[in-house]
Amino acid sequence: MVLKSINAIEAKPVNMEGAKNVKKRLLLSEADGAPNFRMRLFELEKGGCTPFHAHPYEHEVLILEGKGELVGKEQQWPLQVGSVVLVPPNEEHQFRNTGDKVLKLICLIPILKEANQ
Amino acid sequence: MVLKSINAIEAKPVNMEGAKNVKKRLLLSEADGAPNFRMRLFELEKGGCTPFHAHPYEHEVLILEGKGELVGKEQQWPLQVGSVVLVPPNEEHQFRNTGDKVLKLICLIPILKEANQ
Repeated sequence: MVLKSINAIEAKPVNMEGAKNVKKRLLLSEADGAPNFRMRLFELEKGGCTPFHAHPYEHEVLILEGKGELVGKEQQWPLQVGSVVLVPPNEEHQFRNTGDKVLKLICLIPILKEANQ
Repeated sequence: MVLKSINAIEAKPVNMEGAKNVKKRLLLSEADGAPNFRMRLFELEKGGCTPFHAHPYEHEVLILEGKGELVGKEQQWPLQVGSVVLVPPNEEHQFRNTGDKVLKLICLIPILKEANQ
């Protein structure tokens, strides 16, 4: 078994171009022996956002705290606690914090050995 | 994009042998076009538990609400909000609610077309 607490996992700033006031905690990954997918926690401060981008792998997302918006190529959708999102491979997307508090979400991706993640 | 709210997804009783007072919501799966893994939400009422069992695929778990216990073959570990668990393939495990309120956790599994999940 691998057991951890979110609070004991370092929150690292996301420095990708287009990211603003976002930190990431890598909850589970191949470093833990995870065979197939990674679980990450993203924390977007007030006004924060992830890059508007696309990539060849999917996201599976659950909103844990806060309020936000999912931005697609031609549409936006509101996000709140309990919102569940599948971003299919190659679909442009961005997560934005539209509230006054931190927006927390978990985002899972497959482990694709050949991909640059 | 696929967007849902947890509350709009049916909570179905888990009727596996050894399960007690557990409901499951299938948040994301191949029915939504998910390519690689399923996201499920489990809700264990007071006194509830999942079966003590093992299977050839892993679990990635995050505790969302409540208090509980992870039971392994020779050891138990306390679970609380923010606990993260990797149950490796073929390792015996059980989740138990040890608190007075509902224990809510998300549990992800790979989509293995040949496996009986």
